[in-house]
Amino acid sequence: MSNRLESLLACPLPIDDDAIVQMAHGGGGRKMANLIERLFLPAFNSPALSALGDGAVVEVGGERLAFSTDTFVVSPPFFPGGDIGSLAIHGTANDLAVCGAEPIGFSVGLVLEEGFAIDQLRRIIASLADASAAIGAPILTGDTKVVERGKGDSVYINTSGIGRMRPGVNVAPDRAVAGDVVLVSGPVGDHGIAVMAARNGIEFETTLHSDSAPVLPLVRALLDVAPETKAMRDPTRGGLATALCEIADASRAGIRIDEAAVPVRPEVRAACEVLGFDPLYVACEGRFLAIVPPHRAEAALDALRATADGETACRIGEVVADDPGRVVLRTRIGSHRRLDRLSGEQLPRIC
Amino acid sequence: MSNRLESLLACPLPIDDDAIVQMAHGGGGRKMANLIERLFLPAFNSPALSALGDGAVVEVGGERLAFSTDTFVVSPPFFPGGDIGSLAIHGTANDLAVCGAEPIGFSVGLVLEEGFAIDQLRRIIASLADASAAIGAPILTGDTKVVERGKGDSVYINTSGIGRMRPGVNVAPDRAVAGDVVLVSGPVGDHGIAVMAARNGIEFETTLHSDSAPVLPLVRALLDVAPETKAMRDPTRGGLATALCEIADASRAGIRIDEAAVPVRPEVRAACEVLGFDPLYVACEGRFLAIVPPHRAEAALDALRATADGETACRIGEVVADDPGRVVLRTRIGSHRRLDRLSGEQLPRIC
Repeated sequence: MSNRLESLLACPLPIDDDAIVQMAHGGGGRKMANLIERLFLPAFNSPALSALGDGAVVEVGGERLAFSTDTFVVSPPFFPGGDIGSLAIHGTANDLAVCGAEPIGFSVGLVLEEGFAIDQLRRIIASLADASAAIGAPILTGDTKVVERGKGDSVYINTSGIGRMRPGVNVAPDRAVAGDVVLVSGPVGDHGIAVMAARNGIEFETTLHSDSAPVLPLVRALLDVAPETKAMRDPTRGGLATALCEIADASRAGIRIDEAAVPVRPEVRAACEVLGFDPLYVACEGRFLAIVPPHRAEAALDALRATADGETACRIGEVVADDPGRVVLRTRIGSHRRLDRLSGEQLPRIC
Repeated sequence: MSNRLESLLACPLPIDDDAIVQMAHGGGGRKMANLIERLFLPAFNSPALSALGDGAVVEVGGERLAFSTDTFVVSPPFFPGGDIGSLAIHGTANDLAVCGAEPIGFSVGLVLEEGFAIDQLRRIIASLADASAAIGAPILTGDTKVVERGKGDSVYINTSGIGRMRPGVNVAPDRAVAGDVVLVSGPVGDHGIAVMAARNGIEFETTLHSDSAPVLPLVRALLDVAPETKAMRDPTRGGLATALCEIADASRAGIRIDEAAVPVRPEVRAACEVLGFDPLYVACEGRFLAIVPPHRAEAALDALRATADGETACRIGEVVADDPGRVVLRTRIGSHRRLDRLSGEQLPRIC
């Protein structure tokens, strides 16, 4: 037995006193953060991993290369506005984009369940192909595994991606400082509610579509006018609130958010009210938030609003000197409440 | 609906007339090749993917970067000689190595089944960490998903890897020409039989261990003395025979193999006889085969045999002008028979 293995076994760190994996360990919130911080990071002992960005950055041939991975287990695999194929490309492409990288290409690792219909697989493959073609970055390599019935769920897809970091751009979750402005590129929560509705057969008066889309055109527009952008994040599992908490935590700065300023579609808000969800914690798959220095905020907003998906981009708050490491929400009625990371599991298998 | 999607749906290519995914679609043999060639390659339309190497090679900053992915669904996750954690690193590291690359680092994507024991997860994480540390390439980025009980099987792991291509090395499955020599780095079939025994609780007189290990030290030793090496392959799913078929097929050359020269441990041979397997089709996870020009064959063998895992490296055959695209076995009794790709599924979920 290796020394490393021995020491890990000899000194088990408590993981919320949980002896078994629970759905919330994959929920993007506090339990997942515990798993990562107490188990994965000490074992892997990797500075790139410990930076906890949406991807890692390494030097290759004098260029900075971004590298990111994501496995998609969304249920159901087809939903209004997308499917697991397009989502798997958008998800990883967006992770690269918010690292400040231009995607070079993707890998695709399929886990197929025995009995899955080849016709459905064909649709998903076409969707993967279309999404990667739209981004202009090919699928470079792949792998296919099949598991027995009852050992999977139709199809799971891992995509990893590599990208060239944009010269002069240096975004990281620990770079927010007091005075910076918090922008969001569009309404939040559409993806989570659309998938949840598809899963449960819930009908809305108007069909709500996932926001699954590449954020790359918006990120390019932003960085063209605000290359000093401090941090970017795509708020997937755990939603906008959790992404903000991660930035506040990493930079030890306070973040103040105006509840009234956060764009939420009326149908998403209505669904959240009925279902008891907070839209600030519902996953997006085609939005991002950016922390920009104050003198670039107006130019950044103008640039985002000039893009096809960014018309409703807006300023939702600012980084402050008070409350270091915390996110505080100014509610519609003028009170203040702390936003914490998602605790437990709100919507399992949303991505 | 996109044009690409429409055309794919309108003109469904037959995939062995199968309407649903079968275990054999993941077996590494003919059914998997059909799925890749008839469904994935036309849809993805990607030259790097169509090259069907163990990884893709792209240019970054004037350097050649190798990129590979593999998902591991081995059952059981712990077996003599390894576990799914070490296997997931060795598998992707070996894919990079046989591309001619030095690994830079890995991504790890976990799919955990609800209820999986955290203690077992801890062992697997330590094993991933140990294996990557032994190779000297860190885990750079990761992702964790959790699926409900009965929608997974303890743990599935995707690893993707990036590596720097060794300058001056250019290996590809289509480069074999008549006169080249076929080498294998060690005995074949240990991994498949060890996992199969662990799965079924079969006891051998001596414990058979998986060969799961990094081939990087052996590949380095080989390429130091034979940088003109034409092709390398790690014979995982589908075994040695399928890997040889892929090279014969890609290079449109014939390959002649001496059955008596192929190293197989007596206990593996005995297990195969009892179980009705052909050791030439049983997966290895720490071996590789190399196609080298004849004037480098002796030096290459000497170099391999001087490494810790390569003492039994040997010459097993040669590339010939006859039988283009085919692999022919000279049997122990002097007859000849054609070796084809694995058809159907021999040992499911072996990696």
